[in-house]
Amino acid sequence: MADLSAETGVPVPTIKYYLREGLLPPGRPLGRNQAEYGAAHVRRLKLVRALADYGGLSISAIGDLVRSMEDPDVAKTALLGTAQKTVALNVRERSGEHAEQAHQIMADLLAEKGWQALSGHPAVQTVVGVLTSLLELGHHDAVAALPQYAGHAEAVARTDLRVLGDMTDRERAVEVVVLGNLLGDTLMAALRRLAQARQSFDTYGGPSG
Amino acid sequence: MADLSAETGVPVPTIKYYLREGLLPPGRPLGRNQAEYGAAHVRRLKLVRALADYGGLSISAIGDLVRSMEDPDVAKTALLGTAQKTVALNVRERSGEHAEQAHQIMADLLAEKGWQALSGHPAVQTVVGVLTSLLELGHHDAVAALPQYAGHAEAVARTDLRVLGDMTDRERAVEVVVLGNLLGDTLMAALRRLAQARQSFDTYGGPSG
Repeated sequence: MADLSAETGVPVPTIKYYLREGLLPPGRPLGRNQAEYGAAHVRRLKLVRALADYGGLSISAIGDLVRSMEDPDVAKTALLGTAQKTVALNVRERSGEHAEQAHQIMADLLAEKGWQALSGHPAVQTVVGVLTSLLELGHHDAVAALPQYAGHAEAVARTDLRVLGDMTDRERAVEVVVLGNLLGDTLMAALRRLAQARQSFDTYGGPSG
Repeated sequence: MADLSAETGVPVPTIKYYLREGLLPPGRPLGRNQAEYGAAHVRRLKLVRALADYGGLSISAIGDLVRSMEDPDVAKTALLGTAQKTVALNVRERSGEHAEQAHQIMADLLAEKGWQALSGHPAVQTVVGVLTSLLELGHHDAVAALPQYAGHAEAVARTDLRVLGDMTDRERAVEVVVLGNLLGDTLMAALRRLAQARQSFDTYGGPSG
């Protein structure tokens, strides 16, 4: 276990915690206080660590995900469904005048983009919820920019699909969905901050590049 | 308080909790068990709710933010700094071979984009951390796409700056930074899922629009 910790940079108490929570399969027992861990353990540990650090997932959500990765009875499509569900965004059903307005704006966007088949996708509720909050707070400029943001999202998704490639191998399929979406969101958010900072300097003055 | 709850859709026990935590200023006392709440309370409650629901902020982080909004001694620049810090992303210093490689890739990107002045921005560490995880797990295609993602981020940031407009009024200045970034990240992530789903259908087959 000390070797596993040295190779991955994950502290021994954290590895013990992951073992107890079932995020990491047990090693092959070598004696009373020793076990052998292989390359699969190293990789799993790195995956769990990446999801915990940059994916914003709770330990229990990571546990659900890796347990379905291990279960041979879970078909690949179900596995992808679990992965997709785990990465689903916070959704709260909204009601009232602003929520109705937000629903209408979203319906218009789906029609304009030819995305009507996606009207049941959980991400639609998330967009409606964010729009409702923005309308309640009077940020109409932000709401009006929705089609532009959707256009940017299409450009990002084109890069995503090229990067994800084809999903043949089982463990890799889950990894690309989860890492691609969760780490991808963190990556885009960080790059967005940098681009904003750079463009604010250009507009309002500040350190030059 | 019942009226405040009816107008905002936030349950009375939640309002009491926000009052105890200092997220909402107390109402003007009208008697032993009554207090008057005005339009400022309604707006503050909607802001707190939006940040809790779609901003991914903890109650204590929201508390820090609204308390500095109320403090007249906090200058506008410091206030924006607090808001920016609150929206800073998860950062963990990484070391090892992959981390060095990730640092080099990020340095190349900063040079290519003319973003060198931003090398101390916390978002740089976040990008380096995500790249380190992707390199450790062998997702080289994703790492290679970094310049494309940075290009997309620039396009998003251009829309952001147009939407944010000029930041004259104090409370609005904090709102635009916090809402723009946090709700903006949630919005982009949701739109990205939709665009991915749409483009997967086109590529791999599925319901048509």
